[in-house]
Amino acid sequence: MHALLVIAHGSRRAASNEEVIELAQRLAVQVEGKYQHVAAGFLEMAEPDIATTMQTCIDAGATRIDVLPYFLSAGRHVVTDVPEDVHKVTEANPQLVVNILPYVGSVPSMLDLMAGICLQA
Amino acid sequence: MHALLVIAHGSRRAASNEEVIELAQRLAVQVEGKYQHVAAGFLEMAEPDIATTMQTCIDAGATRIDVLPYFLSAGRHVVTDVPEDVHKVTEANPQLVVNILPYVGSVPSMLDLMAGICLQA
Repeated sequence: MHALLVIAHGSRRAASNEEVIELAQRLAVQVEGKYQHVAAGFLEMAEPDIATTMQTCIDAGATRIDVLPYFLSAGRHVVTDVPEDVHKVTEANPQLVVNILPYVGSVPSMLDLMAGICLQA
Repeated sequence: MHALLVIAHGSRRAASNEEVIELAQRLAVQVEGKYQHVAAGFLEMAEPDIATTMQTCIDAGATRIDVLPYFLSAGRHVVTDVPEDVHKVTEANPQLVVNILPYVGSVPSMLDLMAGICLQA
């Protein structure tokens, strides 16, 4: 079973974390042909954390997990922290295939999205 | 003169901040019909900060500034910190027209962008 895990930074503001969870739920509908399980997790400041969310995917039967970093630039979190947390889980589950996808700020369509906001204002 | 200011969080990792500055430069090309000046600034951990970047826009002749929060969810930074820093500058420059645009994570096309990353993987 192929799972998708959206990882966000996490906020002290509960509404911000709920926004990410709702986004993952809406994303699940768009990618349901590929992923049978879609979850959201947080690097820090919010629950569930990365390890817990990955374990939930494994418990649901995931043999492959794609991790989508919901981050805008390649700061320490994208370069070091998220991969480290993911790596701990893969070390403990050597049969699991895990692929960290490009972070959302890295794709060319981000520029179009930003231009769209500016030109519609 | 109408200026656009992209505000990102800021990172201890210089390459991450340069990524934002380059993104703003590429965005400038896409929106040049509307904005005669496009700059990037940072909430914290990096320079220039919001006040400095807004002053640079004013010095360049800006009478209107649109602020694009380069943030993914409505955490404390989007709800409180960025507006507060912007407000201090508008208080000191009452002739300036400032409009805070929707943050990048808030627009419907974000879901398409995320689905695109997942389905291309």
